[in-house]
Amino acid sequence: MSEVSAPRAPVALGILLSGRGSNFMAIAEAIRAGRLQGCTIAVVLSNVADAPGLLAAQELGLSTVTLVSKGTPRAEHDRNMVEALRRHGVDLVVLAGYMRVLTAEFLRAFPDRVLNIHPSLLPAFPGLHAQRQALEYGAAVAGCTVHFVDEAVDHGVIVLQRTVPVEPMDTEETLADRILNVEHLAYPEAIARVLSGGYAVRGRRYLPAEPLAS
Amino acid sequence: MSEVSAPRAPVALGILLSGRGSNFMAIAEAIRAGRLQGCTIAVVLSNVADAPGLLAAQELGLSTVTLVSKGTPRAEHDRNMVEALRRHGVDLVVLAGYMRVLTAEFLRAFPDRVLNIHPSLLPAFPGLHAQRQALEYGAAVAGCTVHFVDEAVDHGVIVLQRTVPVEPMDTEETLADRILNVEHLAYPEAIARVLSGGYAVRGRRYLPAEPLAS
Repeated sequence: MSEVSAPRAPVALGILLSGRGSNFMAIAEAIRAGRLQGCTIAVVLSNVADAPGLLAAQELGLSTVTLVSKGTPRAEHDRNMVEALRRHGVDLVVLAGYMRVLTAEFLRAFPDRVLNIHPSLLPAFPGLHAQRQALEYGAAVAGCTVHFVDEAVDHGVIVLQRTVPVEPMDTEETLADRILNVEHLAYPEAIARVLSGGYAVRGRRYLPAEPLAS
Repeated sequence: MSEVSAPRAPVALGILLSGRGSNFMAIAEAIRAGRLQGCTIAVVLSNVADAPGLLAAQELGLSTVTLVSKGTPRAEHDRNMVEALRRHGVDLVVLAGYMRVLTAEFLRAFPDRVLNIHPSLLPAFPGLHAQRQALEYGAAVAGCTVHFVDEAVDHGVIVLQRTVPVEPMDTEETLADRILNVEHLAYPEAIARVLSGGYAVRGRRYLPAEPLAS
């Protein structure tokens, strides 16, 4: 991954989710409100048949695809997803509570074109139950990270991070809610940054691309 | 470590440093300006003979002790430090750029009474060159952590954390400077919190002590 050139507009997003998809809803609302220009949601894909996010997508008039992962070999499932995403002309894959690790084959199909959001300030508290991990560690600051997805869990290049305080009375639920509020702002902002084409990866740093030397 | 009771006032701080001691200077200034009431600096102790922080302490009229660690067995050095700190009536030990790991024996001499500041949002980027680690990881947010010292490196219970952004043009030096600015505010604030006696450790969380049940 090195220079990231500006994709053609409008960019077609493919959303992957497994649950309620609140980050998907925040992205859809950002597009509707004109805060995330130059892209459309081409398809919402769920690996869980009764994911509430699927119904929400249908109510918004968006195309949806359900590919149940349970009982399907991972490689076969991911191949089916790639096929569905390509059929819908997807340029950028956006994970919004998609609770499975993607295969290397999937990632090769969308090189540097898969984003995820994680409810911690990575590299702190990767994996499941990040908010519980933060509380148990006694962190005083928490937050979220939008990052490119690579083959390691919660590890890819960081697009942006946003912080929230941990409050003395916090439970896992109240902290998760506070983080989710900033996730809903951070994810559209990160997508806009990626779509701008004005950034490039240097080492692991995601930086404004320098003007071309003349 | 469980309930932390309010120490008697004025509390005598013992500062340990190895270098310029900018955090020591920030604490001294907070005391002078009345922003950190109820404590005095009883002694400034260095393990490096020509540490600039020692000279700064002498210019402020503070007692200083130099115990050169180089060439002295660690256990013996730490026993000498404990003896010097006790001789000066130290209640709370404050590490301000003290570049050695303390022995368990030292920590037993000041149970739950040793504070450190680390230039990262722990548990991210422990150890040396935290700012460089943050840049190389591509973190978008950095900061500092004031924590109680336990026998693991950069691991004890967190008193508070403060964040700063990582800027696109940052070098290790510019990021370190930005973090240092918040360190100088965070450390006096954390010491005031500890001296207030109004906090207690629950698990690893440092929380306002609940009122006594009547």
